[in-house]
Amino acid sequence: MKQEQQKIFGKNAVLECLSSDVSVNKVWISKQPNPRLKEIEDKARAKKIPVVKVDKQDLDRIADGEDHRSVIAEIAPVTLHEEDFLESSELKRVLIPVNIEDPHNLGAMIRTAYAFNVDALVLPKHKGSPVNQTVISTSAGAAFKLPIVRVTNVATCIEKLKKNGFWIYGTNVSKDKSQNLYEVDFAEKSVIVMGNEGKGLSDNMLKHCDFQIHIPLSFESLNVSVATGIILSKLYAHRP
Amino acid sequence: MKQEQQKIFGKNAVLECLSSDVSVNKVWISKQPNPRLKEIEDKARAKKIPVVKVDKQDLDRIADGEDHRSVIAEIAPVTLHEEDFLESSELKRVLIPVNIEDPHNLGAMIRTAYAFNVDALVLPKHKGSPVNQTVISTSAGAAFKLPIVRVTNVATCIEKLKKNGFWIYGTNVSKDKSQNLYEVDFAEKSVIVMGNEGKGLSDNMLKHCDFQIHIPLSFESLNVSVATGIILSKLYAHRP
Repeated sequence: MKQEQQKIFGKNAVLECLSSDVSVNKVWISKQPNPRLKEIEDKARAKKIPVVKVDKQDLDRIADGEDHRSVIAEIAPVTLHEEDFLESSELKRVLIPVNIEDPHNLGAMIRTAYAFNVDALVLPKHKGSPVNQTVISTSAGAAFKLPIVRVTNVATCIEKLKKNGFWIYGTNVSKDKSQNLYEVDFAEKSVIVMGNEGKGLSDNMLKHCDFQIHIPLSFESLNVSVATGIILSKLYAHRP
Repeated sequence: MKQEQQKIFGKNAVLECLSSDVSVNKVWISKQPNPRLKEIEDKARAKKIPVVKVDKQDLDRIADGEDHRSVIAEIAPVTLHEEDFLESSELKRVLIPVNIEDPHNLGAMIRTAYAFNVDALVLPKHKGSPVNQTVISTSAGAAFKLPIVRVTNVATCIEKLKKNGFWIYGTNVSKDKSQNLYEVDFAEKSVIVMGNEGKGLSDNMLKHCDFQIHIPLSFESLNVSVATGIILSKLYAHRP
């Protein structure tokens, strides 16, 4: 298990964390009086989170070059699991977002996966957005609840999942080569593989999938987190 | 028909517009050389969009207080229709997002509605996010293609739509009071009413709906644009 320490900067982001399930360890705020800082302070104290009032120089030092806009929160690290986590026989639904670039999209996908009872999310270690503060904020705290597994090679991981009894469903916007989502009977142990924003899944990645699926649309233009929601909703609603 | 003039500021937003279907009239960029500005200039010229190189003072004047970060694009106004647009007998699917606050969500909803062949989107005139530059960018150009109708009173508009043969489906996260989305047979003429991010639909608004529906979930926490995508996908896939 690897832990990634995180800080959140700015009034909006900190307020959002305090209003969600994000686990906040500590808040530093400027000594300079300001009504929104007061709101943050009250909210933090109500949740029994330590609030430290500091000078601008201290904030600058803690922010280490980031634009703190008078407030910084330290949040609990997100637990990132190693690949052996996937060997648990209790897993039934796994989401693999491959190389998602926009942290807002990744965060939204984590939130949605959690809402639809996905058991684990697999991310490539060295590609796509890291699990940063934007991801955590956008996930509305789900990044702390849904197990996230980092793997070195997604294709190898998929092959291992197959050996463990999973069926692999990859998305392909090309309708000729793929099945309509609403005609798919998902297996009890299903892995959904989503491609990145611009390019979707590579041909090589699609070769590792047992099934290729598409969402029926009139125009080929859905945000990847919306597309993920549609597929996971169908999977959840018709779970075997 | 009302036209809203729009300007887009900053390198990322302008590049995004130039890479999407947003109709850009003109681009002002700083005379100061910069590789990303050069990229913007090349992209605009390739699309035969006039590029004007100006001083910082001119940019400041054109931006009128906004943070332009060396580049401004003027984009074609989004056409906002008046309520009588809804009297057309050709409309079959209408989406009403009620008082959506986050322009990213509204933009994502417009993009998704367009992808699923919605015929018109109805917005309250005086509440929720206006159709601003963030909405247009997030919609990936769909705000220019999907007819957007501004109405003074959503409840009155819904009653008129009912008289024109529409059936009204409102979302309600409470499972006891609403039907499972996957058990709903949508009518040929359907209106989907989505509530706002924090509160959903008010009891008063739900009274105007013929049906109340929910998305089956394990936890009640979906982003409103993801929820809209799930409902519109089901409506589109099983259209009568």
